[in-house]
Amino acid sequence: LIASRIAERGGVSVLIVGERLNTSRKEVNEAVQGRDALYVQEDSRRQVAAGADLVEVNAGSRRFSETEDLAWLIEEVQRAVPDARLCIDSSNPSTFEAIIGLARNRPMLNSVTAERARMHAMLPLLSRGGCDVIALCVDDQGIPKSVAQSMEVASRLVAELEDAGVSRERVFLDFALTALSTDSQAVPNTLHILRHLAGELPGVGTVCGLSNVSFGLPRRRLLNRTFLALAMEAGMSAAICDPLDPDLMATVLATDALLGRDRRCQRYSRAYREGRLLGQGSDVKEKS
Amino acid sequence: LIASRIAERGGVSVLIVGERLNTSRKEVNEAVQGRDALYVQEDSRRQVAAGADLVEVNAGSRRFSETEDLAWLIEEVQRAVPDARLCIDSSNPSTFEAIIGLARNRPMLNSVTAERARMHAMLPLLSRGGCDVIALCVDDQGIPKSVAQSMEVASRLVAELEDAGVSRERVFLDFALTALSTDSQAVPNTLHILRHLAGELPGVGTVCGLSNVSFGLPRRRLLNRTFLALAMEAGMSAAICDPLDPDLMATVLATDALLGRDRRCQRYSRAYREGRLLGQGSDVKEKS
Repeated sequence: LIASRIAERGGVSVLIVGERLNTSRKEVNEAVQGRDALYVQEDSRRQVAAGADLVEVNAGSRRFSETEDLAWLIEEVQRAVPDARLCIDSSNPSTFEAIIGLARNRPMLNSVTAERARMHAMLPLLSRGGCDVIALCVDDQGIPKSVAQSMEVASRLVAELEDAGVSRERVFLDFALTALSTDSQAVPNTLHILRHLAGELPGVGTVCGLSNVSFGLPRRRLLNRTFLALAMEAGMSAAICDPLDPDLMATVLATDALLGRDRRCQRYSRAYREGRLLGQGSDVKEKS
Repeated sequence: LIASRIAERGGVSVLIVGERLNTSRKEVNEAVQGRDALYVQEDSRRQVAAGADLVEVNAGSRRFSETEDLAWLIEEVQRAVPDARLCIDSSNPSTFEAIIGLARNRPMLNSVTAERARMHAMLPLLSRGGCDVIALCVDDQGIPKSVAQSMEVASRLVAELEDAGVSRERVFLDFALTALSTDSQAVPNTLHILRHLAGELPGVGTVCGLSNVSFGLPRRRLLNRTFLALAMEAGMSAAICDPLDPDLMATVLATDALLGRDRRCQRYSRAYREGRLLGQGSDVKEKS
């Protein structure tokens, strides 16, 4: 599966979902508020140039205008990077319904859950096909309390989506990674799930929002990129992250090289020649 | 086992073996040649301050004076950091025999192998007790050609050492990690071995020389530290590395925090307050 994903994209072994265009960030909120198209276009272009496969848009913090703001964001992102895919983030099924038609290039919807009402509202949209979907492993009882419960919710989600005609290759399971500052076993449990999923639900994708893991701790990017390396080894297929963090993208390239997922280390070496492995204080001084 | 090692040392979950004092490095060779005690003492102090548990000494490049040079290095390192342990690196059993008496604090010897002559010469020394030993998984047939062969050599080494009275807790297996530039499966195979060893040979330690992995590639420190995170997750108990690389030590602390091996992230947070998580270009700009 990982090999086929690499072949499909000619890129690294993990799909990079760029998370920057979220109105919960002050700068982005101002850009959306003022319809600053240049800001959105420039940010999209930089994300894709840095390696984003999908550009995520989220206007959830603007609850009275979310749908029209998302529609505007989608148009501007597509104007700037017509070949990139969009990941549309909303907790509101009717928002998806209203804007799904605007997105070209098979968008990814973030997200459906196993909550009855949300699943019920999302299924018709998903059955029509044409998009991937992030399936967040929470149900009406909330976030699962154990690895076994998470796997149970995951199986239920995949079965229900498949029954509605959504093939599992289009599904990316999100196990609602919690902050390690509140649960010291959050990462070991996630790695355990990622490792066992290939056997339990072969063909299903997985995704993590990296920054969740470091909430409440200093040097968040150090934690995020170190987690990314571990999760890639465990088989994670997509990461929601900031592609403009050069150390993060360097870690992706290094991890692929280390894991034998980069033939003759060609991508790694090319990135070095193009100056894309910079950003590391001590490495730059290194003779190499 | 990992927990007991942490408890024993009050530190991170991986033993840090500082590899700097090796006469194959030009500066060190000059210091040894000129008996520059201050250089050796200063370097040792900095390594231990940065988190080295053991300070390695190696004078193998000076073949006509290796024994007396090592004896001098051991004295100077012990003068500078009397509480640290030494790791003595030589391929010459008679050198170990001559200098073992100089090392206080249970030294680690690097290394014994499954080669008949070397094993035969090392066993009397090791049976007398009082030191740990790195057991390099090579035999008279050379470096094992498969994971199964590596495990077979490892079992043979441990059995032979135990027969001679060397308890497995004193043994650190080194699987002769090869460069990923020459073997794309070097790291996956090593991680596989590390993961299965706990079941196959419970209680035995493992060690990797990190820099082997990146030989022939640019930005070696990026590869070394990313490999370290993966190997720690897979259960590696000791790393031979450069503790003066701040990004490397930050990765050790981040990995322990992520893996739930740092209660309430206390070591990680203390390191942050003490400025020991610096070194990352983009992190330093980060608001955190």
